[in-house]
Amino acid sequence: MRKIKVAIVGATGYTGSELFRLLFTHPEAEIVAMSSNSFAGKSFAQVQKQFAGIETPILIPHDEIKETKPDIVFLALPHGISMTYVQKWIDEPFKIIDLSGDFRLSSPEVYAKWYHKKHSFPEGFKKAVYGLPELNREAIKTTKLVANPGCFTSTSILGLAPLMSNNTVAPDSIIIDGKTGVTGAGAKAKQNTHFPVVNDNFTAYGIKNHRHTIEIEEQSSLLYHQTVTVQFTPHLLPVDRGIMATIYAKPIGKINATQLKEMYRDFYKEASFIRIVEELPTLKSVRGTNFCNLYVDYDDRTGNILVFSTLDNLVKGASGVAIQNMNLLTGLPETTGLMNLPMMP
Amino acid sequence: MRKIKVAIVGATGYTGSELFRLLFTHPEAEIVAMSSNSFAGKSFAQVQKQFAGIETPILIPHDEIKETKPDIVFLALPHGISMTYVQKWIDEPFKIIDLSGDFRLSSPEVYAKWYHKKHSFPEGFKKAVYGLPELNREAIKTTKLVANPGCFTSTSILGLAPLMSNNTVAPDSIIIDGKTGVTGAGAKAKQNTHFPVVNDNFTAYGIKNHRHTIEIEEQSSLLYHQTVTVQFTPHLLPVDRGIMATIYAKPIGKINATQLKEMYRDFYKEASFIRIVEELPTLKSVRGTNFCNLYVDYDDRTGNILVFSTLDNLVKGASGVAIQNMNLLTGLPETTGLMNLPMMP
Amino acid sequence: MRKIKVAIVGATGYTGSELFRLLFTHPEAEIVAMSSNSFAGKSFAQVQKQFAGIETPILIPHDEIKETKPDIVFLALPHGISMTYVQKWIDEPFKIIDLSGDFRLSSPEVYAKWYHKKHSFPEGFKKAVYGLPELNREAIKTTKLVANPGCFTSTSILGLAPLMSNNTVAPDSIIIDGKTGVTGAGAKAKQNTHFPVVNDNFTAYGIKNHRHTIEIEEQSSLLYHQTVTVQFTPHLLPVDRGIMATIYAKPIGKINATQLKEMYRDFYKEASFIRIVEELPTLKSVRGTNFCNLYVDYDDRTGNILVFSTLDNLVKGASGVAIQNMNLLTGLPETTGLMNLPMMP
Amino acid sequence: MRKIKVAIVGATGYTGSELFRLLFTHPEAEIVAMSSNSFAGKSFAQVQKQFAGIETPILIPHDEIKETKPDIVFLALPHGISMTYVQKWIDEPFKIIDLSGDFRLSSPEVYAKWYHKKHSFPEGFKKAVYGLPELNREAIKTTKLVANPGCFTSTSILGLAPLMSNNTVAPDSIIIDGKTGVTGAGAKAKQNTHFPVVNDNFTAYGIKNHRHTIEIEEQSSLLYHQTVTVQFTPHLLPVDRGIMATIYAKPIGKINATQLKEMYRDFYKEASFIRIVEELPTLKSVRGTNFCNLYVDYDDRTGNILVFSTLDNLVKGASGVAIQNMNLLTGLPETTGLMNLPMMP
Repeated sequence: MRKIKVAIVGATGYTGSELFRLLFTHPEAEIVAMSSNSFAGKSFAQVQKQFAGIETPILIPHDEIKETKPDIVFLALPHGISMTYVQKWIDEPFKIIDLSGDFRLSSPEVYAKWYHKKHSFPEGFKKAVYGLPELNREAIKTTKLVANPGCFTSTSILGLAPLMSNNTVAPDSIIIDGKTGVTGAGAKAKQNTHFPVVNDNFTAYGIKNHRHTIEIEEQSSLLYHQTVTVQFTPHLLPVDRGIMATIYAKPIGKINATQLKEMYRDFYKEASFIRIVEELPTLKSVRGTNFCNLYVDYDDRTGNILVFSTLDNLVKGASGVAIQNMNLLTGLPETTGLMNLPMMP
Repeated sequence: MRKIKVAIVGATGYTGSELFRLLFTHPEAEIVAMSSNSFAGKSFAQVQKQFAGIETPILIPHDEIKETKPDIVFLALPHGISMTYVQKWIDEPFKIIDLSGDFRLSSPEVYAKWYHKKHSFPEGFKKAVYGLPELNREAIKTTKLVANPGCFTSTSILGLAPLMSNNTVAPDSIIIDGKTGVTGAGAKAKQNTHFPVVNDNFTAYGIKNHRHTIEIEEQSSLLYHQTVTVQFTPHLLPVDRGIMATIYAKPIGKINATQLKEMYRDFYKEASFIRIVEELPTLKSVRGTNFCNLYVDYDDRTGNILVFSTLDNLVKGASGVAIQNMNLLTGLPETTGLMNLPMMP
Repeated sequence: MRKIKVAIVGATGYTGSELFRLLFTHPEAEIVAMSSNSFAGKSFAQVQKQFAGIETPILIPHDEIKETKPDIVFLALPHGISMTYVQKWIDEPFKIIDLSGDFRLSSPEVYAKWYHKKHSFPEGFKKAVYGLPELNREAIKTTKLVANPGCFTSTSILGLAPLMSNNTVAPDSIIIDGKTGVTGAGAKAKQNTHFPVVNDNFTAYGIKNHRHTIEIEEQSSLLYHQTVTVQFTPHLLPVDRGIMATIYAKPIGKINATQLKEMYRDFYKEASFIRIVEELPTLKSVRGTNFCNLYVDYDDRTGNILVFSTLDNLVKGASGVAIQNMNLLTGLPETTGLMNLPMMP
Repeated sequence: MRKIKVAIVGATGYTGSELFRLLFTHPEAEIVAMSSNSFAGKSFAQVQKQFAGIETPILIPHDEIKETKPDIVFLALPHGISMTYVQKWIDEPFKIIDLSGDFRLSSPEVYAKWYHKKHSFPEGFKKAVYGLPELNREAIKTTKLVANPGCFTSTSILGLAPLMSNNTVAPDSIIIDGKTGVTGAGAKAKQNTHFPVVNDNFTAYGIKNHRHTIEIEEQSSLLYHQTVTVQFTPHLLPVDRGIMATIYAKPIGKINATQLKEMYRDFYKEASFIRIVEELPTLKSVRGTNFCNLYVDYDDRTGNILVFSTLDNLVKGASGVAIQNMNLLTGLPETTGLMNLPMMP
C-alpha cells in the first residue's frame, strides 16, 4: 500500500518536532515536506539538533508545500497566520489539520471576542470539524479541515464529557483548576519562561480570560445541549510536558463514586487512548504518549464530583491527536503509529 | 537585656533545621538546647551538614531538655509523640510551641476522627491556643501552649479569613485547590518522594480526607460563626518549598474586585507579614521568608471569587510562624528576627 | 517469521520497565514472561502503573521463567543475585543477557577487589562476552552469555575507544569527570535520592573507587594493548536520565581537532547508534533513545584533548543496548526496534 | 555610629537584587540610592516584585548617583559599560566596587584578547585591587577601586590557592571541570536559558575560551610565582544557583590526603567564610550564603589530587563577596551582615 504523504508547515516549533518524532516511526506515513519561512534551506536536523544524524528534509518556504503533493498537511503555525494558509489551500486536493486556534471556535464573532482580532477567513468556520476524535470521530473522517483542539481544552473536555452528555452536573458549577508544563508556552524563550523564573516555582496566569476557556465552554455546551460556563484557572508547573485539569462540579441529582466510574468506563469504552485509572494520575504516566488518564470520584462529605484528567500537552494535547486525526482522515486504524508507551521516569 | 532561652525538641527534621537557621540571626533569642533521641551525643551540625563550620549544640535526649531551663520550648516532633511531651511538661515554667498537629483541633473527638487515633492528653485541648497570629494575636500572648498551625491551613485560612469574618461567601461553596512543595512531606525519604518519581511530574494526593481539611473548616467556622465546609485537594509540586492555595467561592451578595481588594487590605492592615499583592503571586516571591502573599479577584463572567495565597511551608507555614509566636509570647515585636527577604531566584 | 520469545527476570526496577517499554514496539520480539519474586501474582501494570490499560504479563517467580521456553532471557537483577541465576541457567537452551555487574570484569579476583564480595560462579567469566556492540559485535553474535556494560562505562568507553585503539594518548593521563541522572541509582527510594536532597542541588560521590572505574580501565587496556588507568569522578545531576562523561587526555604526539574528528568518524563509521556531533551534546538530545552522542576537540592553548560523551543511562546505558545485543544474538539487524527518536523537550 | 551609605548602580539584575537582599539586614549599611537607566522613576520593588510590600528606593538614572553622596558605590553593570562609570567617578570621594569583569585582569592587552574589545579606561587597571579577600585582604582595605572577582574564578581559585602558594602541583597539570547554575547567565531570558532547554538537561558550553579561564590563570600565576595554565570547562546545571569546580592536579612531589587537608586548614585558618569540609560538598550546603565549602583529597591509585569547591555564584561569587569587600573598605569586621546560614532544602 502506498504510504500517506504528509507535509508539516511551520516545522520548527515544539509541535513540529513532535510531529516529526512521532511520524518517524509511523508505519503508514511518509514525510514528503517540511516548511519554515525562517530556516528555509537548512535541513530540519540543523534546526532541531536532537535529530542530528537522522536524514531529515530540507526546509522549504510554506508556499512551496503544495508542489510536494501531500495527502495531508499539518499546519503548525501561530494562530492568526494559520488562517491565511487555510484560506489559500482550502480547495487544494490535500486535507488540512490545523494545530492553531484559528478554527476551533463556533464563529468569527466569538473568535474576535476571545482572540482580540478580526478573523480573515470567516467562511472557514463552516468547513472545520473540531478535532477531538473521542467526541467527533465520524465527522472527522470526512472533513477537509480539522481544527485540532487546544491542549487545556482536550484535557478538560475529556474529563468533563461524560458529565456533560449525561447532564449529570449543574451547568454553572464547574471549576477547572489547570496546571501545565512550560512547553505549552512554545519554543521561543520569553521572560516568564526563563529557567530561574520557572524552576522551583509555581504561579497562576491568564486567570478569567484564557482562550481555552471559551473552547471548553463551547464544547461542553454542545454536549450538554445548554449553555455551560466554566471557571478555568491555568497555572504554570516547573515541568517540561504534561497537563492536569482538576475539575470540581456539583451533581444535579444523587450520584456516587461507583456510578461515576461506570459512567466514565461506559462513555469511553471505544476510546483507545482514554484510560480510566484506579489511582490518582500523574503527568509522567502519560508522558510522550497519546493517552489521556482520567480519575473520577465523589466526595460524600461535601457533595462535589472530582475529576482528574492528565495528558501530554505536546502529544495528546497537540501533535499526537493530530496524527490520530490523520489516521481517521485516511482510513487507518486510529491507533496506528501511536501506541508507544510512557517514558517513566 | 537577657536573651530568650529557647530549646528545640526533635531538632533533626526540616522544621528543626529551619528553626535553627532563623534563630541563628534572631537578635533576642539564644538556643540553649536541641534534642534528638536518635542522634543524641552528636553535634547538630554533624547531622545537618549544611551547618558544618558553625558551632552548634550537642544533641541531647528529649527528656534532658527541661534541665537546660529554657523560656520557650519548640516541639518539632511527629503528631502522636508530641502530645506525650506536652502532657509531661505542661506545668513546667517554660512555654511550649507545638509544631505538630496534636492540639490544633477543637476536641479529642474531632482529633480521633481525622487522625485515626485516640488522643492521650485530652485536657491539653483546653489549654492550647491556635497559633495563627493574624487571627489570635492577643490570645497567643498569654497562653502556655501554642498549637502551631498546619501549613495548608495557614495558607488557606489567611486567604479565606476576610471572606469568612465578613460572611461574604456561601459557607458551602468553598473549593481549595492546594499545591505544595515536597518538604511538606518531611525529611525522611519515601517512595513517593524519590527524585525520579517527583521530578518533572505532578499529581494530586490525599483527596477528600487530608487532615488539614478539618483544621481549615474549624478555623473558618469560628470566623464565620456558622459551620463551613470546604473541598480541599492537595497536589504535590516538583519544588522544594512553597505552598499555593487557589481558592474559589461564591459570594452571597453583590461584590466586585475593588471591594474585595479593599476588604483584604483592611482586614490585614496590622499584619506585618501579609502582603496584598497586585500581581498573581509566585512561590519564590515568599521563599525563605515569613511572608504570605495574597491576591484576590472577582470574575464578573462567572460570579466566582478567586483567591491566591502563597507562603513558604517551612517558614510562615511552620518554623517562621513558630518564632512569630515566640515573639508574641515573650513581648517582643512580632517581626523581630523575621524580616529577611525572599531568595529570588 | 516466528517472533523471538523473550523473558525479563527481575522486571520491576527501572531497567525492567525500560525493557518492556522498548520491546512493546519491537517488531520481532514477544515478551513471553516477566518475573518478580516480590510481586509474583500481580500483573506488571499493577506494579508499574504507567502501563495501566496495557495488557501486561502476570509476574511469576524467577524460577518459573525457564518453563516459558524463552529464546532470550534478560536478567535485570542486582549484582550478587544475578550470578546465581546465570549459574543455574547457563546450560539451558536460551541465551542470557545479564544487565548486572556480575560478569563484566576480567576475573573473579578483580571482581572480589572492586565489589567486595566473593564471586559464586567464577567459571562464568570465561563464558561471558562484554556486551558493547561497538567494540565486540562479532563475539556477541555467538555467545550464550552477554555481560551488559555499566552505564558510566559505556559512556566513557565509547568516548575513549578511538583514542585507545589508536594509542593516541598517554595511558596514565585520562581524567573522566562523569555526571549522571538519578535513575542510575535505581528505583528504590534512598535518603540521597530524596527529592529535596537532589533538586536544585549537585554533588560528587563515590570518588576514587566507583565500580565502573575498573570496567573502564579494563576495556581501555584491551583496546590500548597496555595498562590504562583513569581518574573517574561521578557526580549526581538533578535530572532523571542521562549521563555525560567529560574526558580529558594528553596526546602522545602532535594532533589537532580536525584529525580527531576524522578519527572518530572513521572509527564509528559502521556504528548506527553513535553520532559524532558538531555541537556540544546535551542529555536531552539522546533522551529515551539508544544513541550515544560524541563531541571531540583539541585545545591548542593547553595541549589537552577533550571528549564529551552522552547517552541515556536507561537505554544505551542499560536496556537499549541489551536489546541491541538481543538483535545481534538472534541475527536481526542491530537497529531493529531501536530507532525511536529523542523526546525533546 | 553613622551607617555606611551605599548606592547600587544597575540595580535590576540578579546581582543588584542580591545586594539589596543582603544589605537589607546588614546592621551597619544603609542603601541611599539605586539606579537603573531602563526603569528610572519606578520603585525597585515594582521591578523586582519579590520585594513587594517592602519600602524600596525609587530608581534613578546612573548619573544621579553621585548626588546622593554615597560612601560606597556598587557597580552591577555589564562589562564594557562599567568601565565608563569607573572612569567618570574614579576621583569622586566614594569608593567603587565593580562587579563586572572590566578591571579583573592584569592589563588592557589581556583584556582585549579575552573580551574581544578595546578597553576605554586602561589607567584603571593600576588603581584596581582584585577583590578576593582571602588572597588580598590588606590591599582591599585601602583601595579606591575593587575589581570583584568572577564567580567561576572565586570558586576555582579558592580551591587552588593552597596548592598554588605552596607550589604543590605541576603548573601545567590543572584541569577544572566547572558546573554552574543558570543565574550565572543573568536575569535576561535567552534561548539557551529557556526552561524546557535547561530543565532535566545538562551540557558543556564555552569550552577552551571562557573568560574566567584567564582570570584563574592570572591569579594562580601570582600565587605560584610562575606561569600557570589551566584547562577550564564550564557546564550548565539545571539549578538556579551554585557553582562547583572539580579540580584535578598532579603533585610535584610526594603528598597524601592528610597533608593536603592540613595544608588547606592552615591556609584558610583566618578565613571566616571558607569551610574545609569532611564530606563531599553540595551546592545547597552553601546556598544563599557567603560560604565556600572545600574538600580536598588524594588518589593513591592514580596519583592525582582532587579538589571540590562550591559556593553560591550570586553571593560568595558576586554580591556577598562585594559586601565582604565593603566591610573591609569601611573598617568593619569582614563578616558583618553576612553570617546568614544556608537555606536547605
